[in-house]
Amino acid sequence: MNETHRTNTDPAFEAAYEAAQKSLREGGIPIGAALARGGEVIASGHNERVQHGDPIAHGEMSALRAAGRQKSYRDTTLYTTLAPCAMCTGTIIQFKIPRVVVGEAETFPGEFELLRARGVEVVVLNDARCVEMMRTFQDEHPELWAEDIAE
Amino acid sequence: MNETHRTNTDPAFEAAYEAAQKSLREGGIPIGAALARGGEVIASGHNERVQHGDPIAHGEMSALRAAGRQKSYRDTTLYTTLAPCAMCTGTIIQFKIPRVVVGEAETFPGEFELLRARGVEVVVLNDARCVEMMRTFQDEHPELWAEDIAE
Repeated sequence: MNETHRTNTDPAFEAAYEAAQKSLREGGIPIGAALARGGEVIASGHNERVQHGDPIAHGEMSALRAAGRQKSYRDTTLYTTLAPCAMCTGTIIQFKIPRVVVGEAETFPGEFELLRARGVEVVVLNDARCVEMMRTFQDEHPELWAEDIAE
Repeated sequence: MNETHRTNTDPAFEAAYEAAQKSLREGGIPIGAALARGGEVIASGHNERVQHGDPIAHGEMSALRAAGRQKSYRDTTLYTTLAPCAMCTGTIIQFKIPRVVVGEAETFPGEFELLRARGVEVVVLNDARCVEMMRTFQDEHPELWAEDIAE
């Protein structure tokens, strides 16, 4: 993991961050994701537990749903503001997405070991905005956060 | 795994099987699932790749979406007609569902090793109807089946 906190300027990561911010404005859980191919964003999405009562709609899952049916994901990268949970990790493995770019893993550890064991490249940005966004949310809505990670 | 093929009469498993049959009638992929608590079916669902162009809507995922927000899954059992893929396996682990009842694992091996490594009880019914249903589908729609498992 990187030691430095820095602001990211990758447009696909920014799409993931903007999706998280949109969810926050809607009163939802501020986690966003984007699927990109060759630098182009195919789709983005955010957690929809609050907005649609949908427990499987983590940010990564919403982005993949929004991307619709793809013949292959082998040339894609998934961007996400927070380290992927077991559901999203299993999905990345199943879809054979080779690379995941993660905003931060300080407020939730995710399943990096499983991802890497299955050959997925994991890049952690340690994005300070993402850490601040999640820490504030976890402090203000502990019950909602616990529900989202089934604690 | 059991050696015998038998017809199952558990109502929750029948709900999963009926959901798979409904998907088949709709021209979709015939995989169904149901979430149950204390013998009562909370919700069922089926693969919706064809029906809604939704790549994350495997049977198990659809059943969990249909069940809506649950405070806990620790007292639930997930029934599914086919061995869970990595996405559905990751979801079972993430949601802390302790037990999975699987119709068959002959036509797709699933991720039993990962499930069991994470403490999930896996029961395989070797249901002959499920084997026949999937084998026929895989023979008739090889491209759709390949897409659904990202091959």
